[in-house]
Amino acid sequence: MRIAILGGTGDIGQGIALRLAADTAHTVTIGSREAEKAETKAEEYTTELESRDIDAAVTGGENAAVAATAQIVVLAVPPYHVGDAVEAVAESLDPGDMLVSPATGMKRDDDGFHYHKPGAGSVTRIVADAAPEGVAVVGAFHNLAAARLANLDADLGVDTLVIGDDDDAKRTVADVAEGIEGLRALDAGGLANAPEIEGLTPLLINVAQNNDGLHDLGVRFQ
Amino acid sequence: MRIAILGGTGDIGQGIALRLAADTAHTVTIGSREAEKAETKAEEYTTELESRDIDAAVTGGENAAVAATAQIVVLAVPPYHVGDAVEAVAESLDPGDMLVSPATGMKRDDDGFHYHKPGAGSVTRIVADAAPEGVAVVGAFHNLAAARLANLDADLGVDTLVIGDDDDAKRTVADVAEGIEGLRALDAGGLANAPEIEGLTPLLINVAQNNDGLHDLGVRFQ
Repeated sequence: MRIAILGGTGDIGQGIALRLAADTAHTVTIGSREAEKAETKAEEYTTELESRDIDAAVTGGENAAVAATAQIVVLAVPPYHVGDAVEAVAESLDPGDMLVSPATGMKRDDDGFHYHKPGAGSVTRIVADAAPEGVAVVGAFHNLAAARLANLDADLGVDTLVIGDDDDAKRTVADVAEGIEGLRALDAGGLANAPEIEGLTPLLINVAQNNDGLHDLGVRFQ
Repeated sequence: MRIAILGGTGDIGQGIALRLAADTAHTVTIGSREAEKAETKAEEYTTELESRDIDAAVTGGENAAVAATAQIVVLAVPPYHVGDAVEAVAESLDPGDMLVSPATGMKRDDDGFHYHKPGAGSVTRIVADAAPEGVAVVGAFHNLAAARLANLDADLGVDTLVIGDDDDAKRTVADVAEGIEGLRALDAGGLANAPEIEGLTPLLINVAQNNDGLHDLGVRFQ
């Protein structure tokens, strides 16, 4: 499939792009608001893949342009930008395309990180509310440490939770996620179950910060 | 140490009582609002331990009576009872005693289970607000499946997150928790980090309900 990663120049976008390009046969392209920035980063990713003798290329372009060519569009952008990002690419999406939301809202205080629940109920819900008709929204890739994902030397051995109200889209995205070596995709139900998944990310950071030897944590359900 | 488990006749209380009695040298007693109910259940637990050739006895009694003899009091009661439970035993606690809160609030809808965040901020916070002066509050044992915990044939291999604003109390409770075979205690920071931990419990149920072969799930941070 053709997968576009909006915000693919950022940390989590980089990790998803590199892993999908390295481990799967999908065509991966990254988007940015500035085409040139995406193109430069895509060249860096391709160079890294080449240095590992991986025969895969990542391309880049402006968000709407890369979304137009993709069946799956991953919104690897900050939570306060997801609504705008969907609107910016809405005209480029076709019915049957899928939007994937990995973002979560966090705030920090003296004790650590906390889930910053949006008024809409969840970041994933903001995406669903902004999505054009006929475009399914799936939540996935929420609880992955960006640095670990982007480091192709690092083993994953963790789970990603997949949620959505369209079972076919959810299964498709779960299959894509499981193409990444060491990543198990688990079904966590409908979009309404997003807050607890998004709230797991600040918890992972708090656990990493309070225990020596733990960092870039993921989670395994067992 | 002497550990009293209020609500020790319930599912999660049974699991904590059996595991602590089976795996550690701590003195375990369970409490109920009715002394006789606690005594009957304690005899059942002791019989089960004997049937496994484990030389440990669980005793039972009325909540305030068992709290009076304990250094650690675990509040294995429903979230809407924790405030009352603390008040009922407050006079029985001495400075230096510890209250441990494993409860979480949940509500259910068509999509699954959701975290029902109390107005106070968390169930753990309700306990902290009700605790007598000099009694430290620690959150622990939140994300453990009761049936798995109570089944001594079941391997755990999962983590429990420990939170608290009193580092000594937190360390003491973490040590007690790690006495349970297969349970790793991780420090998740201060009491203010409770909501994300309490919110993990409904997520575990949602994941178990949506994936064949997964049930009584726990979580491992890795």
